[in-house]
Amino acid sequence: MVEKKYTIGLLQLAFSSDTNNNLKKALAYTEKAAKAGARVICLPELYRSQYFCQKEDSSLFNLAEPVQGPPVEAFQKLAKKLQIVVVVPIFEKRAPGLYHNSAVIINSGGEVTGIYRKMHIPDDPAFYEKYYFTPGDLGFQAFKTTYGTIGTLICWDQWFPEGARLTALQGAEVLFYPTAIGWHPSEKERYGMAQKDSWITIQRSHAIANGVYVAAANRTGFEQPVKNQEGILFWGSSFICDPQGVILAQASEDQEEILMAEVDVNHMETIRRNWPFLRDRRIDAYGDITKRYLED
Amino acid sequence: MVEKKYTIGLLQLAFSSDTNNNLKKALAYTEKAAKAGARVICLPELYRSQYFCQKEDSSLFNLAEPVQGPPVEAFQKLAKKLQIVVVVPIFEKRAPGLYHNSAVIINSGGEVTGIYRKMHIPDDPAFYEKYYFTPGDLGFQAFKTTYGTIGTLICWDQWFPEGARLTALQGAEVLFYPTAIGWHPSEKERYGMAQKDSWITIQRSHAIANGVYVAAANRTGFEQPVKNQEGILFWGSSFICDPQGVILAQASEDQEEILMAEVDVNHMETIRRNWPFLRDRRIDAYGDITKRYLED
Repeated sequence: MVEKKYTIGLLQLAFSSDTNNNLKKALAYTEKAAKAGARVICLPELYRSQYFCQKEDSSLFNLAEPVQGPPVEAFQKLAKKLQIVVVVPIFEKRAPGLYHNSAVIINSGGEVTGIYRKMHIPDDPAFYEKYYFTPGDLGFQAFKTTYGTIGTLICWDQWFPEGARLTALQGAEVLFYPTAIGWHPSEKERYGMAQKDSWITIQRSHAIANGVYVAAANRTGFEQPVKNQEGILFWGSSFICDPQGVILAQASEDQEEILMAEVDVNHMETIRRNWPFLRDRRIDAYGDITKRYLED
Repeated sequence: MVEKKYTIGLLQLAFSSDTNNNLKKALAYTEKAAKAGARVICLPELYRSQYFCQKEDSSLFNLAEPVQGPPVEAFQKLAKKLQIVVVVPIFEKRAPGLYHNSAVIINSGGEVTGIYRKMHIPDDPAFYEKYYFTPGDLGFQAFKTTYGTIGTLICWDQWFPEGARLTALQGAEVLFYPTAIGWHPSEKERYGMAQKDSWITIQRSHAIANGVYVAAANRTGFEQPVKNQEGILFWGSSFICDPQGVILAQASEDQEEILMAEVDVNHMETIRRNWPFLRDRRIDAYGDITKRYLED
């Protein structure tokens, strides 16, 4: 087998209300990760701002920006300079009144390889995303980059095996999950560990079921943008696991960190030979996956 | 919410080459579990014999039996007597030369509620199942029983999120996985823990993704039916987890055990309200799940 390896890097960061500073920090950490050897680097979801979906407020649409704008351009320039691939999340303004929660994939020549628009949109107390984001209409995708074929999904997508499957079937070697997940502080003690463990487990399962690497970049820090609301304590714990679900690197809950691991396509091949799930899928019997529910 | 709870029981057993004795043992443990309070009881895959798929030998088809035969009838009688539901695996002889790896669902009145035929058939060194078993043609199913709606899948099925999803979408509250999985002894030290952990993780992920209980009944013990082959060390570790993937009960690797836990349909409702994945599935975008692979 021809050797094919590349190092991926995740940035686990905390963000303030200063969007320019968040951009500067993200660029600086990206450069640092590249200098440490990462060739494909992924930022946390909506890294430009604090997690504004804690309330529904139409003025917050001002945070959105078109794909071709200064932040993405800054990353394009950096990608070209350092010859790296970067997954850059964006609160995408597509048209007046039409917004997405997206990620831009920038290749090592600085060109935009593609855009992924978050397909599954959550809506829970203090995670009012259905108010802000139109569900993605570009489907699940894998992107060919200089170093490897990568897939990007975003946060809530991580709970849906279908998204992981459809991305892997397109040849993705790694599934990146830019993320913003945390605890309601009042729930942390009672439910916190089970919630975080479920989050890790479901993503490791995508690695196992599909024989791919999985890399989740979460934010960290406590954010309380709305007075009289308890805020969210983002749980960090970004991680990278191999195609058998073995965790290769995991960050703390509360520190800013660069997390790196090597993607080895031959290891992926070996795992898939030993656990040949793709061989045995019953594609003749899966049609009803496109149904909402299967009553009698 | 109306209270709806029932106790399920898994039998983790070791099996000898004496098929009559295996049946007797399975019946005795079923009765014991019922007397301890289990209302729905599940046996390990192919409990009637040692795991014969360690070699390809046409005389071993003699182990197969029709659904309506003495073993299932013995369980029907017991189910009626104890008013329990039992998931009884069977090496099913359907017609001359046509065999399945199946499970018979017996309701508390003693009647056969349905049959599940293993959909995903493995084939690995010492697990030569494709030689013996025709892939199931009854699809994924949920069965209404006296105590609750249950789904049954079998062993290799546990690696495929699609099977779990399609069973849960039919209303299953528990997914039972009768299983026969173990280590090649020579691999145990190096790969054993990662393999077992993957097996637990993928099944917990089905609980999480679908908001259902999962209950896996594995065999235990070392079986070496083929001279000059190293045999299989079945790893036990049967477990039951709740709809958030929290493990409620887990057996040892090497002991025969009855494992019990309570299914609480209101807890399932609570978990699904807080993690509303069924609300947000992008059924408009899942069609390609029925493809083998998605080349350009």
